[in-house]
Amino acid sequence: MKALILLADGFEDLTLFLPWYRLREEGAGVALAAPFLHAVTGQRGYAVEPDLAIHDANPSDYDLLLIPDGPAVERLRQREEAVDVTRTFVESGTKVAAIGHGAQLLISAGVLDGRRVTCSPGIRDDVRAAGAVYTDEATVTDGILLTGRGADDLPAFAKALMALLGAPRRAALAT
Amino acid sequence: MKALILLADGFEDLTLFLPWYRLREEGAGVALAAPFLHAVTGQRGYAVEPDLAIHDANPSDYDLLLIPDGPAVERLRQREEAVDVTRTFVESGTKVAAIGHGAQLLISAGVLDGRRVTCSPGIRDDVRAAGAVYTDEATVTDGILLTGRGADDLPAFAKALMALLGAPRRAALAT
Repeated sequence: MKALILLADGFEDLTLFLPWYRLREEGAGVALAAPFLHAVTGQRGYAVEPDLAIHDANPSDYDLLLIPDGPAVERLRQREEAVDVTRTFVESGTKVAAIGHGAQLLISAGVLDGRRVTCSPGIRDDVRAAGAVYTDEATVTDGILLTGRGADDLPAFAKALMALLGAPRRAALAT
Repeated sequence: MKALILLADGFEDLTLFLPWYRLREEGAGVALAAPFLHAVTGQRGYAVEPDLAIHDANPSDYDLLLIPDGPAVERLRQREEAVDVTRTFVESGTKVAAIGHGAQLLISAGVLDGRRVTCSPGIRDDVRAAGAVYTDEATVTDGILLTGRGADDLPAFAKALMALLGAPRRAALAT
């Protein structure tokens, strides 16, 4: 299992680190891609070094695309290579997971028509205008596409992400 | 499974949120305890509302004590009720997990003599002086006591925490 995460300055820190480290906990390979090979900084100040530039990312090398929340997404959607990578994942039927404002990149890629999604409440009108069916839920899975409402819903998002990736659920912790 | 997390202003944000949300993902109950019933703020600015004051926490209600990293621990170790709660967990054989500077509270509780631990490198001399056997590893589990080196090692910490709590490992994600 190999995942690609799209980043730019202003990512929402928890919505990067929690899924990233959750995937690493499961032994998955994870590559961080940013517009340039410079460190990027989250809204809360955590800095991370990208592994590659987005224009060097080959979607067929990965089993999952993950887009964290944050103002970073408005930066990413203005970059053609980020929009192209996102469209390629969806059109090739590869799994895609977007949290909060991550859905803005899905709008720009033109892949939301007829899809059931959730997102940050402030962009619900935009996902509807893009043809998606919006629901105010912690997470929504529609085929290959998993969307999460935001950082507060990360426990449910992690569970849904594991289900999307086909990891069998283990027994709940003893009570 | 019910966990108690000890917090004060200056907790290291990721070392709170990752284990906290990981436990919630598994369906565990988690209570956040702070010196007072005011919101506490992490080093990076995430604010959380405690569920209870530490002096109202009854260790026998819980199966796990978790102490996140951060300068918060120097605040906690100056409060008798936080030291007492920590000592009670260890002496009653209940599981305890401490990340980074979390070991400072274990020093103040006087429970490290003869224990194998890891911790933030800047306090390794202090844990040695308290009688512990320090190793520079991502995580160390010694009986009921799990210690983690810091935020960068959270994927390994989450794995070790799940093992400590007795959740069976599921199969790795397909490659």
